[in-house]
Amino acid sequence: MRYAVLGTGEVGRTLGGRLVELGHEVTLGSRTKDNPVAVEWAREAGDRAAAGSFSEAAAAGEVVVNAVGGQVALAALEAAGARNLEGKVLIDVSNPLVFEDGQLHLSPVESDSVGEQIQRAFPLARVVKTLNTVNCRVMVDPGRVPGEHVLFVCGADASAKEQVTAMLGEFGWPAERVLDLGGIRESRAVEMWLPLWLDLSRTFGHADFNLELRRAR
Amino acid sequence: MRYAVLGTGEVGRTLGGRLVELGHEVTLGSRTKDNPVAVEWAREAGDRAAAGSFSEAAAAGEVVVNAVGGQVALAALEAAGARNLEGKVLIDVSNPLVFEDGQLHLSPVESDSVGEQIQRAFPLARVVKTLNTVNCRVMVDPGRVPGEHVLFVCGADASAKEQVTAMLGEFGWPAERVLDLGGIRESRAVEMWLPLWLDLSRTFGHADFNLELRRAR
Repeated sequence: MRYAVLGTGEVGRTLGGRLVELGHEVTLGSRTKDNPVAVEWAREAGDRAAAGSFSEAAAAGEVVVNAVGGQVALAALEAAGARNLEGKVLIDVSNPLVFEDGQLHLSPVESDSVGEQIQRAFPLARVVKTLNTVNCRVMVDPGRVPGEHVLFVCGADASAKEQVTAMLGEFGWPAERVLDLGGIRESRAVEMWLPLWLDLSRTFGHADFNLELRRAR
Repeated sequence: MRYAVLGTGEVGRTLGGRLVELGHEVTLGSRTKDNPVAVEWAREAGDRAAAGSFSEAAAAGEVVVNAVGGQVALAALEAAGARNLEGKVLIDVSNPLVFEDGQLHLSPVESDSVGEQIQRAFPLARVVKTLNTVNCRVMVDPGRVPGEHVLFVCGADASAKEQVTAMLGEFGWPAERVLDLGGIRESRAVEMWLPLWLDLSRTFGHADFNLELRRAR
């Protein structure tokens, strides 16, 4: 499969690198065509890896992964171009984190979400929200954390969610540990997990954790 | 111990009933002195159970539990009276749920929380936020759900958190499954868990579940 991964931060490079290892072709997209971080990443990641602008990456990918921060997601996807997203699975892994008055906040929050913003702005993209609930190393290597811990997917398009669940399976997440929460509106719920994740990360002193759901039936 | 449980809904009656079973004296407080639900509860719960106004209950209790909804918590506690809360452990189990435009919302959210509102309004009370992350039947009977699932406590007063952790221990929660997240500000994080809890409850079709935290170390 040909993937576009938008964003050259740790999340984008980690996801892109794992997809290349799995045999996929990946273009890491950034605001500028010759972003040195992206170029260096592509050189190290090998033959199936390339670097390009958001637009070049999105044009090359059959699936597009939004791995830029929630605050700049719409701008990055606008630069990628609506035509390059049309009909494609668009995986949003971002969180709406913003640093304000010396503290981390979420924006949008509760009455909206980045997942919904993206789906509204690009109605012909098949947006699936997932992976934002764990650290990027856990995203691509769930075995870092013991137990039957879970991920969530949400989005309007059932076949897009199936395709994303298959990709998560390649990362090591069994399908029974990927919970379908429903439509893209449920992005609100998974984005609002972040404050508790941040508290737990501080309490544990690391990011190698996740939640397992225990149920009576 | 003498407990005041403010609120005659399912949460208040369930918590009050369990505390009576455990040998404590409980006054179930409501807006009106002769609330028939509270009177009937007290009659059924037995000799250690009483019903009264918010103020009578808070005056009688050594520990006060806020089990009214987040939207009416401040009004209930004002009716209980600041003098009746002074120096006491005040356990807030509420969530800021509000039904608006045909949908459930949280208010306050993200930049404030019910836990913080209560602590600000009653600075001499020793507020501990806990239990709001699970259904009330799970609150008092964690064995309904298998596994090492957890609760959270937060609040400014370490000895108040210890005392609450001991009460949770009586309910069946081992101390190692009660995570101290820090100060009362972390009420935001645990209150923001609610949307995901609601999604999961709908997905599972019941409320007998909870999260277990899995970690690498």
